[in-house]
Amino acid sequence: MADLSLIAELATEGTTKIVLLVMDGLGGMPVEPGGPTELEAARTPNMDRLAAEGTLGLHIPIRPGLAPGSGYAHLALFGYDPLIYPVGRGVLEAVGIGFPLEPHDIAARGNFVTVDAEGRIVDRRAGRIPTEVNARLVERLRTIRLEGVEVRIEPVKEHRFVLVLRGEGLSPALTETDPGKTGVPPLPVRALQPEAERTAALVNRWIEQARALLADAHPANMVTLRGFDRPPRLPSVSEVYKLRAAAIAAYPMYRGVARLVGMEVLEVHGESPEALFREAVARWDDFDFFFIHIKPTDSRGEDGDFAAKVRVIEAVDAALPILLERGPDVLVITGDHSTPAALRTHTWHPVPVLLWAPRTARPDGAPGFGERACRTGGLGIFMATDLMPLILAHAGRLSRLGA
Amino acid sequence: MADLSLIAELATEGTTKIVLLVMDGLGGMPVEPGGPTELEAARTPNMDRLAAEGTLGLHIPIRPGLAPGSGYAHLALFGYDPLIYPVGRGVLEAVGIGFPLEPHDIAARGNFVTVDAEGRIVDRRAGRIPTEVNARLVERLRTIRLEGVEVRIEPVKEHRFVLVLRGEGLSPALTETDPGKTGVPPLPVRALQPEAERTAALVNRWIEQARALLADAHPANMVTLRGFDRPPRLPSVSEVYKLRAAAIAAYPMYRGVARLVGMEVLEVHGESPEALFREAVARWDDFDFFFIHIKPTDSRGEDGDFAAKVRVIEAVDAALPILLERGPDVLVITGDHSTPAALRTHTWHPVPVLLWAPRTARPDGAPGFGERACRTGGLGIFMATDLMPLILAHAGRLSRLGA
Repeated sequence: MADLSLIAELATEGTTKIVLLVMDGLGGMPVEPGGPTELEAARTPNMDRLAAEGTLGLHIPIRPGLAPGSGYAHLALFGYDPLIYPVGRGVLEAVGIGFPLEPHDIAARGNFVTVDAEGRIVDRRAGRIPTEVNARLVERLRTIRLEGVEVRIEPVKEHRFVLVLRGEGLSPALTETDPGKTGVPPLPVRALQPEAERTAALVNRWIEQARALLADAHPANMVTLRGFDRPPRLPSVSEVYKLRAAAIAAYPMYRGVARLVGMEVLEVHGESPEALFREAVARWDDFDFFFIHIKPTDSRGEDGDFAAKVRVIEAVDAALPILLERGPDVLVITGDHSTPAALRTHTWHPVPVLLWAPRTARPDGAPGFGERACRTGGLGIFMATDLMPLILAHAGRLSRLGA
Repeated sequence: MADLSLIAELATEGTTKIVLLVMDGLGGMPVEPGGPTELEAARTPNMDRLAAEGTLGLHIPIRPGLAPGSGYAHLALFGYDPLIYPVGRGVLEAVGIGFPLEPHDIAARGNFVTVDAEGRIVDRRAGRIPTEVNARLVERLRTIRLEGVEVRIEPVKEHRFVLVLRGEGLSPALTETDPGKTGVPPLPVRALQPEAERTAALVNRWIEQARALLADAHPANMVTLRGFDRPPRLPSVSEVYKLRAAAIAAYPMYRGVARLVGMEVLEVHGESPEALFREAVARWDDFDFFFIHIKPTDSRGEDGDFAAKVRVIEAVDAALPILLERGPDVLVITGDHSTPAALRTHTWHPVPVLLWAPRTARPDGAPGFGERACRTGGLGIFMATDLMPLILAHAGRLSRLGA
């Protein structure tokens, strides 16, 4: 993997246009021995033609064997190795619901939990209360005030919420309150550095007030807090890649991650592939790079619905001419990770990549776009973080290294 | 990528003979959809037989997406990752013209530039003056004397030259004088460390004398200097690989890089493949390892002349029996990078590798030597710096790691 500072030195501005089309959870598996994967089963005449003209490969999202969350997987696709540029869980949770974090905010991931009469945790997820109950309890917690800082709390899903502190002189160097097991009380927050003492005291005060407000709210009668962090200061895609980059994504998580790396997040008018592609075409002259995110491949994979995932891929293929007619110089079609319907979850399996660049790609002449064809493609099996340098190279935007 | 100190521990002396045949810029691309690359189009009966008996693969010269200069690409082929063992631009420039650098020399890359009456740069390349004009101006600059150091200056091409300071107590920790833009004067040289103060003063004095000598020499009426460096202290191929290595190359850059890694650079009598191969055969008993460099594959690629590049490859193939009759234990045929005629420049595309070792290679049974066959070869797609360990292994010159 090349170092971002090296890429930043070599990347040059240009006039070429790049589209990175991410079908979330694209990678799949056969459901019967010898059968096709979702991508192989899908009728994709447009992608098949691009596969013959372009270069294929498989990317490993983070490291071999690691199944990533969507936030981390997208950071890697954008070239930011999440093991080198870590993003706290509190920040990811806030990003995931589209919370507009400011640079000095401290975000934590919260859980509603159940405690017994002695204050010992008996359920670390409060029986996974319905999200509506969560939202009502969050309303109660919004009444808590802390001196000198603004407190924001937002429900996420089931028992999860996000807590954000905004103000001067805060520090995220705090221990977590979740003891990681039942039978013991939540831990107090402790400062890991002297400058975090005040923040620790503020958070502990917030927790005590939350405990009082939730006393009668069985099963969600207490909270735990984890993953205190500040938004990372990632070098932006304009600094590193010299790209004016736009994100076209309907879901908050992907809009948030794109914002973290400095992409401009466009308003979308519809979630269909056609609608998303038309957004790119409408703003074609304003940007060099369009990240377009398709969600339902992942959702149908998580449902375990092979046929429905196939239909999503076919709908994307059918809409592709909208992009192709605009004539991108580089079009990459891939996923952020695999979500095989057979396994109903994110997995570590390498993800198909199709890199089409009519002037610069060495054509594989592959018979179509699918996991088997990608396995013997000219890009090989490579780390997701190598995708952006490959894209820039094919777009004529990376200078030669050395005389 | 394997660590050189590990390889140095495991490498053993032996009696096996190795040939590394580098066709510069070998990797190519089709010029028409579905067509062959240069290597695939070439009639290469000898290489095709070796491909069937040997193992194929593709190497990535430096990192995915990076198009390397020839110096860096050769260092990587020899196992020295240029991002780990960097070589300054001044040194590469000197090496490229065959200047015999001594260990404590300081080399810089110089440009003739055009400045206006106020000394502001108006052209950073002095209109790319002809090399002959450059040579005459260099003659003038040779009259400059500095106290206590020897000054050498050599013309390169067009507006470029090499400046070398030789003497005691010099340091390359200097800033560059090229401001990287026009409209401002060249910068003075500053020391980056206290021990470089004297060198900075000497270089600034040289620049002031150069300015005076060039005052009437429009458009090349001033100079800039960049990339001050000393020859790197690379561990030699005899230390690391336990090889007595010879370089058979007609062009200065490749002779220079081979010298940097401690190969013995042989005199050549002709540039044809036959002539170069006969040199190896003539010195067969004196060395374990022969690096043989073929230049015109790259030159014809840069010309954009697909057919001429094909003919160069065919001429190499036709001469191969000269080497094969001598019976090397390992013969590797590859390039340092790709130079597809279709793109007329060095590119990042992975480079075909044929590793033939009649006793130790696991045969691929490939139908011939070309990019497509290499894509699915037994060596996979691998980093160039892994080639030397693979070569040593196939030559029976690398001990087992661990009990």
